Amino acid sequence: MFKIKFLPYNLEVFASPEETIIEIAMRCGIHINASCGGAGACNKCKIIIEEGKVKGEVIDNNFYKACQTFPLSDLRVRIPVESYIDKRAEFLKPKKKASFLSKEIEKLPEPPFKKLYLKLQPPTIEENFSDWIRIKYTLEKEKILNPELNINILRKLPYVLREKNFEITLNLYYDLRKDRYYLIDIESGNKVSQNLGVAVDLGTTTLQLELIDLNTGEVLASISDYNPQISYGEDVISRIEFAKRKDGLKILANSVKEKIGFLIDEMLKATKKNFDSINLISVAGNTVMSHLFLELEPKYLREYPYTPVTTEFPLIFAKELGLPFKDSTLIQLAPCKASYMGGDIVAGIVASRMAEEEPLTLFIDLGTNGEIVLGNREFLICASCSAGPAFEGGGIKNGIRAVSGAIEAVNIDPITFEPMILTINKKPPKGICGSGIISLLANLFKVGIIDKAG
Amino acid sequence: MFKIKFLPYNLEVFASPEETIIEIAMRCGIHINASCGGAGACNKCKIIIEEGKVKGEVIDNNFYKACQTFPLSDLRVRIPVESYIDKRAEFLKPKKKASFLSKEIEKLPEPPFKKLYLKLQPPTIEENFSDWIRIKYTLEKEKILNPELNINILRKLPYVLREKNFEITLNLYYDLRKDRYYLIDIESGNKVSQNLGVAVDLGTTTLQLELIDLNTGEVLASISDYNPQISYGEDVISRIEFAKRKDGLKILANSVKEKIGFLIDEMLKATKKNFDSINLISVAGNTVMSHLFLELEPKYLREYPYTPVTTEFPLIFAKELGLPFKDSTLIQLAPCKASYMGGDIVAGIVASRMAEEEPLTLFIDLGTNGEIVLGNREFLICASCSAGPAFEGGGIKNGIRAVSGAIEAVNIDPITFEPMILTINKKPPKGICGSGIISLLANLFKVGIIDKAG
Repeated sequence: MFKIKFLPYNLEVFASPEETIIEIAMRCGIHINASCGGAGACNKCKIIIEEGKVKGEVIDNNFYKACQTFPLSDLRVRIPVESYIDKRAEFLKPKKKASFLSKEIEKLPEPPFKKLYLKLQPPTIEENFSDWIRIKYTLEKEKILNPELNINILRKLPYVLREKNFEITLNLYYDLRKDRYYLIDIESGNKVSQNLGVAVDLGTTTLQLELIDLNTGEVLASISDYNPQISYGEDVISRIEFAKRKDGLKILANSVKEKIGFLIDEMLKATKKNFDSINLISVAGNTVMSHLFLELEPKYLREYPYTPVTTEFPLIFAKELGLPFKDSTLIQLAPCKASYMGGDIVAGIVASRMAEEEPLTLFIDLGTNGEIVLGNREFLICASCSAGPAFEGGGIKNGIRAVSGAIEAVNIDPITFEPMILTINKKPPKGICGSGIISLLANLFKVGIIDKAG
Repeated sequence: MFKIKFLPYNLEVFASPEETIIEIAMRCGIHINASCGGAGACNKCKIIIEEGKVKGEVIDNNFYKACQTFPLSDLRVRIPVESYIDKRAEFLKPKKKASFLSKEIEKLPEPPFKKLYLKLQPPTIEENFSDWIRIKYTLEKEKILNPELNINILRKLPYVLREKNFEITLNLYYDLRKDRYYLIDIESGNKVSQNLGVAVDLGTTTLQLELIDLNTGEVLASISDYNPQISYGEDVISRIEFAKRKDGLKILANSVKEKIGFLIDEMLKATKKNFDSINLISVAGNTVMSHLFLELEPKYLREYPYTPVTTEFPLIFAKELGLPFKDSTLIQLAPCKASYMGGDIVAGIVASRMAEEEPLTLFIDLGTNGEIVLGNREFLICASCSAGPAFEGGGIKNGIRAVSGAIEAVNIDPITFEPMILTINKKPPKGICGSGIISLLANLFKVGIIDKAG
């Protein structure tokens, strides 16, 4: 075993000579960019060996590739700034209404999770139905027929019913596509007011979460952070490759679930809300991200003819995914449409209501992957392509993400052709990000250096 | 700690002075009758202290009540024959058709569990639906819409589908009352022939099980044994009382589940059938037995106004109940009608088809509890009462179960009034069982010793 010290973190760990530097970094939570998932192709995981001997290939300026380098002695390893990104979660100022709504919509859609307060007649010798049948008959009056229920509810039912003299609050989930109700939990007394939900935009690069009052639709907090799966590959293809390794799928799933749990906790702390009030976590992500989240085999999405395991997801309890919520916290995933047309787009179409209206609408989701949908209430057509990293990493030697120091705007003097650049946070330039490239291309075109053919 | 030796078993265990003899016996698997659940009321748990000192009340002939007696030293305890029963499982000669059918019925009812073999078209680039949607569309052609499914099926789906080139067998459960399908499991290739079910008559005193081929309805094996919950109380009321103790409900549930698992195993061994072919375990018991089996609180069944937790039971996986079957083995419980009109009677009415026919039928189930149902296709009325132990134990000092040595027939000489008795297995008389009491009463009436008023 060798002692490996990571800088600038000042973190020391022990490692065997069979582990690559990137593997060692991963298991101690240090992020190193790796667009290709550790295949040695992208050259993004550059590290500097400040002390000690390694086995590995030297690339430009005495850098090593962390994914191809093994320790031969104790080491001091520096992660240069371009090999990591700032991981700090970012609180966003919450809007009063759900932020996906581009225009004011008076009436929010009915949430699938609702609480129903019931004041039941206590049993008498003339009407001594069983506890459950008493509830079932009452629900039938509300047009809720034959809800699914589970044994845990029955096990606590008699105590909960009698705690507040047969006043109870039912937690119900309604599946619109199946027109089916699920009885998720039962509480004593009137607990209708404790009804929080979390919306999760499960992006390939970024997670964005909102804490929502499911009774009013009010957004109570908003937070965003990187998807920690970036450590295992920047785009969906590299992550599918990573998932093929032993425990790869589990590692990917756990990392993002852990981060979501952490971000929810942060929002609850900031708003002083009760953890146990979280009833529903609603997740929308592209098809690959949805597969990785649920630990569904993603590899056939990469192999001809590119089939997902599923584009519809069953209702699942958070605890079944190992998330630290109460037993009855539910997780729903937005359904996907195809291999590369995910639940995030479906959620966007639903939220924008473009499929309900007459005017032709063009919906563009430009993230790590890009999708566009064109249509109205009569038709919808869609297409998808690579986006972010395709500009930042793919063919561009100095392409980087939109971090401090990335060139985000370029102007070219039409006479002298002298470039003028602007970087993010006005820091010394470290590389060029997607919007910088678009700006550069536009200006190259404007001054006549390149033409329509590129 | 004292050393306690149980005779005639020659079993020695250590025990603390805080444990009653019946508690010590229970934890080492020795059966002592206890009609009242250890309340000290029934005097059935008589033991003889052959050696050592105890704290406890001496009853007739130097017996002690095991439920009220604590050790004060090392002991030699004898369990007299009337305090235990033979626990050996009994194989029955299986009938070719399900034994609940009193008359030949040509067409058996459709079982709720079926296997469906599908040969799917493998995906092409033109038709690259997700794996699940491919199955779902095929099921829709069979009029099976939106079945419930779970994440475990999705996790193995892509491998199972590709193992035999998209030939699969679906395991489906159909809930008639909800008109809803559940996808329980998926297997590669054609596995339709491996489809066994077990029917369990969950009696208060006796368990009777049948191993059934769900494709043909053929009964492959039949077995019966005592319900081991007898050790904790002979009738439903004593067991409800026992369930109030710490872990009492769990102990009752585990004891009967363990015995059912054991009896199924015995039937499989005897028929050389594969354990993993068991897909459905169908249980019918009275309302209290159903509650104890599922660990549902039974105490409100005893308290005014006598309400069960539920009379309908959700579908449940055997593994959720801790039973050692494969992940997809299902358990269904027959629905009950009321607190003392259980699933066993409902199952009997369904099986006899009395509710479909014109002639008025009287259906009698005489067990530890007795229920009668009168009716036809137009109406059904029912009533219930105590039966077996009400004769054997309740008010009868020498009442015993129908064990060897129990008086089962009595004749009285009409001139001398001299009685003549017959015992089971012609052993010296130890007490009188239910049929003996009926025989005695009939003869007392015949010779004019008692009249209609008793």
